[in-house]
Amino acid sequence: MAKKNAFYAQSGGVTAVINASACGVIQTARKHKDKIGKVYAGRNGIIGALTEDLIDTSKDTARAITALRHTPSGAFGSCRFKLKGLEENKVQYERLIEVFKAHNIGYFFYNGGGDSADTCLKVSQLADKMGYPIQAIHVPKTVDNDLPITDCCPGFGSVAKYVAVSVREASFDVASMAKTSTKVFVVEVMGRHAGWIAAAGGLASDKNCELPIVILFPEIPFNKEKFLDKVDAMVKQHGYCSVVVSEGVQGEDGKFLSDQGLRDAFGHAQLGGAAPVIASMIKEALGYKFHWAVADYLQRAARHIASKTDVEQAYALGKAAVELALKGHNAVMPTVARIADQPYKWKIGVAQLKDVANVEKMMPRNFITADGFGITEKCRAYLSPLIKGEDYPPYKDGLPQYVRLKNVAVPKKLEEFKV
Amino acid sequence: MAKKNAFYAQSGGVTAVINASACGVIQTARKHKDKIGKVYAGRNGIIGALTEDLIDTSKDTARAITALRHTPSGAFGSCRFKLKGLEENKVQYERLIEVFKAHNIGYFFYNGGGDSADTCLKVSQLADKMGYPIQAIHVPKTVDNDLPITDCCPGFGSVAKYVAVSVREASFDVASMAKTSTKVFVVEVMGRHAGWIAAAGGLASDKNCELPIVILFPEIPFNKEKFLDKVDAMVKQHGYCSVVVSEGVQGEDGKFLSDQGLRDAFGHAQLGGAAPVIASMIKEALGYKFHWAVADYLQRAARHIASKTDVEQAYALGKAAVELALKGHNAVMPTVARIADQPYKWKIGVAQLKDVANVEKMMPRNFITADGFGITEKCRAYLSPLIKGEDYPPYKDGLPQYVRLKNVAVPKKLEEFKV
Repeated sequence: MAKKNAFYAQSGGVTAVINASACGVIQTARKHKDKIGKVYAGRNGIIGALTEDLIDTSKDTARAITALRHTPSGAFGSCRFKLKGLEENKVQYERLIEVFKAHNIGYFFYNGGGDSADTCLKVSQLADKMGYPIQAIHVPKTVDNDLPITDCCPGFGSVAKYVAVSVREASFDVASMAKTSTKVFVVEVMGRHAGWIAAAGGLASDKNCELPIVILFPEIPFNKEKFLDKVDAMVKQHGYCSVVVSEGVQGEDGKFLSDQGLRDAFGHAQLGGAAPVIASMIKEALGYKFHWAVADYLQRAARHIASKTDVEQAYALGKAAVELALKGHNAVMPTVARIADQPYKWKIGVAQLKDVANVEKMMPRNFITADGFGITEKCRAYLSPLIKGEDYPPYKDGLPQYVRLKNVAVPKKLEEFKV
Repeated sequence: MAKKNAFYAQSGGVTAVINASACGVIQTARKHKDKIGKVYAGRNGIIGALTEDLIDTSKDTARAITALRHTPSGAFGSCRFKLKGLEENKVQYERLIEVFKAHNIGYFFYNGGGDSADTCLKVSQLADKMGYPIQAIHVPKTVDNDLPITDCCPGFGSVAKYVAVSVREASFDVASMAKTSTKVFVVEVMGRHAGWIAAAGGLASDKNCELPIVILFPEIPFNKEKFLDKVDAMVKQHGYCSVVVSEGVQGEDGKFLSDQGLRDAFGHAQLGGAAPVIASMIKEALGYKFHWAVADYLQRAARHIASKTDVEQAYALGKAAVELALKGHNAVMPTVARIADQPYKWKIGVAQLKDVANVEKMMPRNFITADGFGITEKCRAYLSPLIKGEDYPPYKDGLPQYVRLKNVAVPKKLEEFKV
């Protein structure tokens, strides 16, 4: 039998290091040309597979592929497109297998979060049923850090580092201004369901550099009175404080804080964030001058301040995915298995996709202090290693040199398919 | 005559490199102990001088002072406190001279923007009049880059680098998502009067890495229709675009875009930014999915991505201020004088404070493209050198190691004074 080609696709929100995983997949596949043919990437994720819009990664040089390791975003395009149940979306799943068959694809590497793990599992199951077996391996990725079994998710460590560094820097700034001006700085970070990213703000303060920081987690229902008391106490004690608010914080009524039904002067709905809501609240109740920021994409795209640990793990998981495939594994996901906190040691583990799909890992309650506004030592021990080390991209004329691939299309063989 | 002590204070909004200027002042003064006694810093800026709350910088080690060079914020505290006209604020100016006399201060180094240059000049004039001559030297600092005569202002280059890098990174992110999700990313940057910082967003795109970027400058009255046409054209051509909006953008009615009279569901006023307003506008008119960010303090505190050129200039200007004082200058400000764009060459110049005080340098119209949404080659030639080079702070356990000084108070000699 002729050797099979591989398919690789990026799914969901991109990160500072998802391309490092792509780099791991492609470089490792290239090292095993005896067993793996070409690596085709889906243009704009799984949509590329459905529409037979495949990218021939062999058209890009070794140098370009190496540069993926230091390039943020999704080099082949990603998509927010969820394949639902097999019955509901059967035509689409069958189309996937048809495309894989047409291009002699025997390996399916899917780089994404929880939904993608589910899709990956279904592809493997259906392919089996249709008599065209495909080894489907999921490569974990999500800034939300909410996949089960793996100790952490690539993408998270770099966002965590960005948030920890930024909160430290902004806290120094506010400290200098507090005497006559800004006393409270509010920064909004990602994490609609889980507070992992918000928790990273707590790392800005450590025993060598204590800083007054109040964190609002989505896991803790927002209590306005307790929050304002906390901020007031911090400002009275330290002269200032920083507030890290997760975009997913909800009031005790279950409504997102950011969803305040804002209207402009003409009554048009406006899109608020949680940060300005919190800032207004502080101003109104306590009268403190404030500033607020919303980091949004800046945090997940910030390859310039990526965590070295995160980059290494992202690469290693891409590499491991190919190695697992070569060993005959199917419907699995390589994981990060933590061996020790300090000094930090980890190794690659393996999880069955059936145990990963549709399971969300929340912050344990004992990672959050009793008052609900800070992180515990247990949380710190978990988070600290993940932001360790710097991995700077190369610069030219003051700007990071991120690669853009040629992304040459593979000639189509099938009829058009509408998604 | 006994040698005189020096007074140094930080004024207004702090930056990623104002402490590098402080480092330049203190290290240079320490090298001239035959002529300059101690360097006293004002705790929280000029307020420290008025309240006789002086910091004895000699209590901090050479190592701590060296670390100022890589530490953002104002190490001695800054303040927003403007001394007005001599007649109006005579008591305060006289108090300053009294404090300087009491502590044998003969050198006044004031590190700030346009207002501080004015104060610095007045201190020098009044001291003369009062028969206690003080050499008053202004050290330029402002992220707004709006001081005259000097080619650029320390603090600006690092914000510019942060904005250019962030816009490049976020643009890569949006490009990967655009097929099925976010098509427009809006980021709000500082600059209430001048568009220098917004212009830096234009550097994200260059001939090696072209990116669709639309800039909204405070210098160009906002025209909704033209703006939406521009964004739509960009998205139609490239599939996505990034919008960099200055916080100071005003409508043709002269009202700030950010000032939309937002009300929450209960009718309470809410504090908006320009970014969410722009984002809502795009969504409503064009229907494109968007994300928005407000960088706020993150941009000016971001020492982790400081421009090496900026750090070097900040240090050199602090050093030059002391050297000018030693040469007998008074009522002057050391400047950056550009010799050549490429390769970039600069030297230290000198400006008279009477020519600096109360003059605001705006972006020349020929730095902005004819359509008002981009930067010209002339602007690029000016900006590019200012973001050149990286100057990373040291890290430990994944976090930058910024110094906090002892800030030991000098014993008071005078009666209390209320500000």
